[in-house]
Amino acid sequence: MLQEYKKKFSEHVRLLQNEITEKMQGMDVELTLNEDLWKRSDFNDHPGGGGITRAFEGDLFESAGVNTSEISGAIDPKFAKNLQGEGSELWAAGISLIIHPYNPKVPTVHANFRMIVQGDKYWFGGGADLTPYYPIEEDFIYFHNVWKQACEPYGCFDEYKKWCDTYFTNSHRNDEMRGIGGIFFDHLNTGDLETDFNQVVDISKSFIKSYFPIVEKRMNETYTDDDVEFQLHRHGRYVEFNLIHDRGTLFGLKTKGRIDSILISLPKRCMYTYRYAPKEGSPHEKMQSYYKPKDWV
Amino acid sequence: MLQEYKKKFSEHVRLLQNEITEKMQGMDVELTLNEDLWKRSDFNDHPGGGGITRAFEGDLFESAGVNTSEISGAIDPKFAKNLQGEGSELWAAGISLIIHPYNPKVPTVHANFRMIVQGDKYWFGGGADLTPYYPIEEDFIYFHNVWKQACEPYGCFDEYKKWCDTYFTNSHRNDEMRGIGGIFFDHLNTGDLETDFNQVVDISKSFIKSYFPIVEKRMNETYTDDDVEFQLHRHGRYVEFNLIHDRGTLFGLKTKGRIDSILISLPKRCMYTYRYAPKEGSPHEKMQSYYKPKDWV
Repeated sequence: MLQEYKKKFSEHVRLLQNEITEKMQGMDVELTLNEDLWKRSDFNDHPGGGGITRAFEGDLFESAGVNTSEISGAIDPKFAKNLQGEGSELWAAGISLIIHPYNPKVPTVHANFRMIVQGDKYWFGGGADLTPYYPIEEDFIYFHNVWKQACEPYGCFDEYKKWCDTYFTNSHRNDEMRGIGGIFFDHLNTGDLETDFNQVVDISKSFIKSYFPIVEKRMNETYTDDDVEFQLHRHGRYVEFNLIHDRGTLFGLKTKGRIDSILISLPKRCMYTYRYAPKEGSPHEKMQSYYKPKDWV
Repeated sequence: MLQEYKKKFSEHVRLLQNEITEKMQGMDVELTLNEDLWKRSDFNDHPGGGGITRAFEGDLFESAGVNTSEISGAIDPKFAKNLQGEGSELWAAGISLIIHPYNPKVPTVHANFRMIVQGDKYWFGGGADLTPYYPIEEDFIYFHNVWKQACEPYGCFDEYKKWCDTYFTNSHRNDEMRGIGGIFFDHLNTGDLETDFNQVVDISKSFIKSYFPIVEKRMNETYTDDDVEFQLHRHGRYVEFNLIHDRGTLFGLKTKGRIDSILISLPKRCMYTYRYAPKEGSPHEKMQSYYKPKDWV
């Protein structure tokens, strides 16, 4: 049965990848798509699966990656010990995406849904989180509401929302969040594979609805140089989180993942300034105050 | 005696900080200096030393940090176990500097000289490395030659040069180096404190000579948009190294260092592009080929 669900999950993430690709292409006429099919060799240098990396560059979507992968085989035994299951044979499939729009009024989004099998044990993980650069509260409420509805049948929103607030946090920056949260979950295994599978697949289907209506609403808004400066500094914090804290990035590096596919998550342009702070009384100062846990619904 | 050398080392790095500050101010009339004196509380929340952070922004030197610190007190016991000495009481003093010039023809430089005492055990570490963005070989030879001469009396150049080539390496990027190397050393303790102290202080005095003549030679050279684009992508790799691999950054985060002083090392502007590669036949492609161990002298 596990075999059957592995196959179904792989198929599901590839379908979702195609749907998201089509959606993006429909919205950004200048969007170029660079697709790379890659293969991996495992820790013992045997064939170990691979993936489909789709890198986008456009006018609306400055840089984006919508990737799927299905890897299998041996991993570093030291690393394997830190995981949930037994042994150093791993299978993992998932979709991972990050979209960094050009216009600072349009938020960055990240989402990921994965199924992992180590030895006899399976588990699911995933989530979606928003990183806005301008304090348009109705968008933040909308985003959280979509995920709340998606989680409703499973009674998991409160838990997953809290988990997200804790996870996407720059602990080295006084626990400032990367963005304004969303949902995050890991190690989902109730013992009932069919139920767990259905829950994750069902939740993942809300991604398009959670994000693209916000893009459509904001993509033609004007913006200032100050808006861009704030956005680029927040891009800098995004890089800090991904390179210092993100378990997904670490997982990729430790399992000999394809480096270009992993670091596709980094925004095209970013800035660092010593003791950077947004201007007093600016909308950016207000936005800054939202990078902490907050009940948006 | 250890007490006396701790004091002398602290004084030395502060003098060096002042000399470098004056040198930079003399070269960049638009240079602004933001000086912060900070104090640290140790792992038990007792007073634990502090530092002098000097952040620069200018026309020639786009962003730079020339910092000294002297910290003392308790550190995380788990982290203490990974160090050379015994116990979780630590004393450390040093100078750490990074200069990122605006003009891509002028290389970035980093240098660091430190003395650490854990329990009864002392050791020194340090080095200097260059990150150029344009293939001006004579500058790379000059930089290495200065450090070779500085190391001559101690017979340590070959060892320190090799150590540098190994250390400043993005292992996740196929062992590509951050720049073109220089010298690096750590855990220097021959058992003769006076000799070790004199060696490190003496070597550190070559910093000004190793770098600023290169700046003077290149600061008025013209450059193209392609030069800037290559520079900003290399800035991106610089950020990757510092946040993923750099022990100094990790040391700062683990010892509850001041985050703004630690991350001052990041360049002001940087770029990431999926599968970025310099144009074929360009000087940048040539420069790219130099980010690996090479005998420059």
